[in-house]
Amino acid sequence: MHAIDVISRKRDGGELSREEIEFFVQGYTQGDVPDYQAAAWLMAVYLNGMTNRETTDLTLSMAHSGDVLDLKDVAPFVVDKHSTGGVGDKVSLVVAPLVAACGMPVGKMTGRGLGFSGGTVDKLESIPGYRTDLSQVEFRAQLGQIGIVLTGQSADLAPADRKLYALRDVTATVESIPLIVSSIMSKKLAAGADAIVLDVKTGNGAFMKTLEDAETLAEAMVRLGSQAGRRVVALISDMNQPLGWAVGNALEVREAISTLHESGPADFREHCMVVAAEMLILGGKADDANAALTLAMETLTSGDAWHKFMEMVEAQGGDVHYIEEPELLPQARLIEPVPAPRSGYLASVNAAEVGMAVVDLGGGREEKGDPIDHSVGLIVHYKVGDLVQKKTPLFTIHANDEEKLAAARERVLAAHTFSNTPVHRPPLFYRRIAAD
Amino acid sequence: MHAIDVISRKRDGGELSREEIEFFVQGYTQGDVPDYQAAAWLMAVYLNGMTNRETTDLTLSMAHSGDVLDLKDVAPFVVDKHSTGGVGDKVSLVVAPLVAACGMPVGKMTGRGLGFSGGTVDKLESIPGYRTDLSQVEFRAQLGQIGIVLTGQSADLAPADRKLYALRDVTATVESIPLIVSSIMSKKLAAGADAIVLDVKTGNGAFMKTLEDAETLAEAMVRLGSQAGRRVVALISDMNQPLGWAVGNALEVREAISTLHESGPADFREHCMVVAAEMLILGGKADDANAALTLAMETLTSGDAWHKFMEMVEAQGGDVHYIEEPELLPQARLIEPVPAPRSGYLASVNAAEVGMAVVDLGGGREEKGDPIDHSVGLIVHYKVGDLVQKKTPLFTIHANDEEKLAAARERVLAAHTFSNTPVHRPPLFYRRIAAD
Repeated sequence: MHAIDVISRKRDGGELSREEIEFFVQGYTQGDVPDYQAAAWLMAVYLNGMTNRETTDLTLSMAHSGDVLDLKDVAPFVVDKHSTGGVGDKVSLVVAPLVAACGMPVGKMTGRGLGFSGGTVDKLESIPGYRTDLSQVEFRAQLGQIGIVLTGQSADLAPADRKLYALRDVTATVESIPLIVSSIMSKKLAAGADAIVLDVKTGNGAFMKTLEDAETLAEAMVRLGSQAGRRVVALISDMNQPLGWAVGNALEVREAISTLHESGPADFREHCMVVAAEMLILGGKADDANAALTLAMETLTSGDAWHKFMEMVEAQGGDVHYIEEPELLPQARLIEPVPAPRSGYLASVNAAEVGMAVVDLGGGREEKGDPIDHSVGLIVHYKVGDLVQKKTPLFTIHANDEEKLAAARERVLAAHTFSNTPVHRPPLFYRRIAAD
Repeated sequence: MHAIDVISRKRDGGELSREEIEFFVQGYTQGDVPDYQAAAWLMAVYLNGMTNRETTDLTLSMAHSGDVLDLKDVAPFVVDKHSTGGVGDKVSLVVAPLVAACGMPVGKMTGRGLGFSGGTVDKLESIPGYRTDLSQVEFRAQLGQIGIVLTGQSADLAPADRKLYALRDVTATVESIPLIVSSIMSKKLAAGADAIVLDVKTGNGAFMKTLEDAETLAEAMVRLGSQAGRRVVALISDMNQPLGWAVGNALEVREAISTLHESGPADFREHCMVVAAEMLILGGKADDANAALTLAMETLTSGDAWHKFMEMVEAQGGDVHYIEEPELLPQARLIEPVPAPRSGYLASVNAAEVGMAVVDLGGGREEKGDPIDHSVGLIVHYKVGDLVQKKTPLFTIHANDEEKLAAARERVLAAHTFSNTPVHRPPLFYRRIAAD
């Protein structure tokens, strides 16, 4: 078999066989297929698409390009969650300890932020000492002992995805449904989860701008997970404004801690409860949505979720003083509330622009490997639909540089629009998609 | 400007600006744009095409990626010819000396064979001593002194094409009209020709399988040459069987020498006369087709074309004994006539299969840089439409290896089909395309 024949077939709109896909993926992972051939192939896949069968074979081939974890010896049934990425999305920080506190093991490998989208690993690294580079042995041991792990992606899992993702990023082939599906699901399958809740974001601060695209992606991932023998549910959620109030790493950790203490923004809390309930149902800890939501809320109210979070931070080397007194977490030098330029109903917030403003402040990355400043970010004070009074603070910037602060002020002000008449509040969730 | 934005725009079917094309081509030539980004871009161009304006800008940018020859000081008006590649196409060996013998300087850089298609440089290297690596200084000097040069492509001309062509070859992006046009025409423009006759082949032994594709390519090249201020004519010629009788390097040189001595196959001689006449008209040596054909035939009959060929071989270091006595040229050890399997009208010959059979004998390359055996090849004894008698030789194989000979026998036999009823003879030429 020759790589060029596989490229030609996809270029001509043909369907690749499982053998061809495996040949290409394994060849690329091992370095037999060079970057330039993989790049031409990715562009052909981007433009000509893949059938469901091809997407499944691609995902399975990528999942098996490295180690595939079997966690049965440390946890009989493991639940995972995955968000397609958004602005202010600190859901894992609350949901993972909450579900684990219900006796449902959560072993989760998570990513770093890129562009407007933040990453859980970056947020956790706001906590001094917290290790996000656990080995597989440490991962297993911790999962067995305390039933929760939140760490970075292991280099030994799905190495094909690591290589292909880096290549997609520089060849304009990121926004392709089969490539996104295979990237997400190959990692999840390799990481050994038995059940997965997918939080598929749609809106101006998501990769999927339209509900239709989000549905297509969600349906493909649910079908694929189901074919691979996993229990999978996808929730399509709104990302037409930041989730919660805080955007920025340490600020988001503080908001998660508030939420674990039953405080924090209502939209974020509700979002967490719904996701946690889905995980509890998939894991068999509740029979229906009502029972699951009740269990989730009780676990929050009882403080059990908070204690599980502390247990995890301690197990991963984090200094718990910082989460017991979150004001100790990295603080920016300049904190400036920005007044609303006018009165009116908040009509829209461009969440991607808010995310990029935080990147500009130093709180995110334009390119992989860029260092980040955990202390900076911003707090929004209103949600779409709220009536805003002129001159009251619309948002507050946390910065370490006067010029960057000024630039963020302009960028975020421009990301807000107002209306003289009442505005429809977007829903938190649009749809739930489960396997047939 | 970022390479990824240029890739994205073409991926989305947009039209690239001249600045974007120049940025990408110059960046790739200089190594600032890596192979994998160029590969993704090539696939996007392959699948989404280019407008005429983009193709022109791409060609000019590639032509100016290195030196652009100005030959005015050694020859006031230079004519070139280019074939898109076929099987048994030794036209340049006859036409270049013939036109030069009419006082029309011919300075031609030519290529090597790849796949089923032969290359003039390989054929010339059958002549011991013949140099195909003239420097620009040698090229100019010889063109000024004897009015003819047939040498290999200079590395200093259109380096963007050299890099892009090598990349297209391994990324399944060869068969794209804008990429073919820009590859051919950038080299021709950089090589300093004032007029160019394009021999665009169509048929089973050509890259353009259909007349329609050949016309599209020819029209694009004529338009482009004209926009760049060159006189350009394209002839669309048949490649549904080998041109002439001989296929293989030394065998083709012998056939060219026969033709220069007024012998050789009729189809090949006529093909040469038509191409030469077009070159003479473009160069102003004849006013119309009749006058040009008469001049071409007289120059052949008088022996002037043959003497110019000898002069060229000598000037480029070739041993003229070998062309004075062509039986001295490399000879294969095994020469086997293969009898016709049946009687009937020869209905078709798959020329690409014949070309690949010669590659298998060692006379061509599957990959760039492969060594070749100049002595091997084959001679066909019939043209499509001829009535063939069973058991008379259908073709003769020249080989140096018994097994390869047997394989070529089967492959070439399978490439011939017969009919019980008379068969239409394909024309030599289908169309002539000139600028408006």
